Amino acid sequence: MPRFKLLVEYDGTPYCGWQRQQNGPSVQAAIERAILKTTRQAVTLHGAGRTDTGVHASGQVAHVDLDRDWRPSELEGALNFYLKPQPVAILSVEAVGPEFDARFSAKGRHYRFRIGNRRAPLAIEQGHAWHFPKPLDEQRMHQAAQLLLGTHDFTTFRAAACQAKSPVRTLDRLDVHRQGEIVVIEASARSFLHNQIRSFAGSLAMVGEGKWSPERLREALDARDRKACGPVAPPEGLTLTRVDY
Amino acid sequence: MPRFKLLVEYDGTPYCGWQRQQNGPSVQAAIERAILKTTRQAVTLHGAGRTDTGVHASGQVAHVDLDRDWRPSELEGALNFYLKPQPVAILSVEAVGPEFDARFSAKGRHYRFRIGNRRAPLAIEQGHAWHFPKPLDEQRMHQAAQLLLGTHDFTTFRAAACQAKSPVRTLDRLDVHRQGEIVVIEASARSFLHNQIRSFAGSLAMVGEGKWSPERLREALDARDRKACGPVAPPEGLTLTRVDY
Repeated sequence: MPRFKLLVEYDGTPYCGWQRQQNGPSVQAAIERAILKTTRQAVTLHGAGRTDTGVHASGQVAHVDLDRDWRPSELEGALNFYLKPQPVAILSVEAVGPEFDARFSAKGRHYRFRIGNRRAPLAIEQGHAWHFPKPLDEQRMHQAAQLLLGTHDFTTFRAAACQAKSPVRTLDRLDVHRQGEIVVIEASARSFLHNQIRSFAGSLAMVGEGKWSPERLREALDARDRKACGPVAPPEGLTLTRVDY
Repeated sequence: MPRFKLLVEYDGTPYCGWQRQQNGPSVQAAIERAILKTTRQAVTLHGAGRTDTGVHASGQVAHVDLDRDWRPSELEGALNFYLKPQPVAILSVEAVGPEFDARFSAKGRHYRFRIGNRRAPLAIEQGHAWHFPKPLDEQRMHQAAQLLLGTHDFTTFRAAACQAKSPVRTLDRLDVHRQGEIVVIEASARSFLHNQIRSFAGSLAMVGEGKWSPERLREALDARDRKACGPVAPPEGLTLTRVDY
């Protein structure tokens, strides 16, 4: 069966996340429905990252096996046609070999977390950034973030519900910079634990606000205890931007 | 009566535009309602620019007269409290003299028009950019745009419904540049005609696509005839970014 790799963008606001759910619309189900309309084939779509409710993606990757060969551009056009007007877009379709697996072949995942750092509520950025009204020192956040790089037991920054077998991950990048009112956190790793980046964002905000010293962040990591984590930042600030293979 | 100047941001998607309407929600009415809840006073809010249905603002300005003096920060906080969760935010409040008029004192208005220039539909930018699937040459658009600068009869680029007495305006800036997939048009003038920027954007897209020569754009201007205009671009690409006084 020919296998296809899909590059996917979505606004996660109206969805219960990537994964198909009983209790609400998911991005996976929306694309599977478009595939059914296009190919008359009921399929399971495999995504690289299971983004949570309200989390966005500008570079999610998924793969699917189809009964017959398709011209990639034809498949792309048909899927986008059937997805309209939902805020899900197929950016590209590529024919791949049977060894390609969107989830298990991934060598790197890149996420962006955006904080709207101003007193007034967010209007245009509502649903696409975490509103944090107190001033944040993004340079202090960046410095502290560097303490988290490398291979660690990230139990502190992991959701209680996390299903990963091991809490050990290797964090390759955790950069913080400011673009006007927006403080941007860029995180890269081969894979992340459930809520890991939102946990980082919440704890880094404690550092940026001056409530935590950078050392406190390091102590939180060393504690290997969920209770040592700062507040978990809300999902709407998070975007899956790229998956490397 | 003390007069206050409000700096306002909004996502225009759910609104029938700035101006109060019988047939749907408006930004003006939303803020007037928040003022009523805060001050128990039914007021008329005067905006600098009457943005259309679906048009956004990151720097709209309005003024209002209140019965009593307010601490600006207190007023700002109360208005934002009552505006929640609507996508309208009061960025600042300032006490001004009776000579200040948001509309008539304005010396310059700045708008941004965004075009999402890629084959795939827009998901994250849906409602915040005009989707234009064919490749646009933004440098050619910028060059052609310079032909429109200065004082002209802009009848060609004016909605039939435009209520301005004169079709003559002085265009100070019409810059076009690209940020990745987004082609950005920045327009500045003391004031604009109804649909002027959306008319510019539609005609400039004809130039960028190669269907129009820059000379054709100049001829359209010289024709002083609405029928010479290109397609009018949709409202969702447009944002009022700043008003100068």
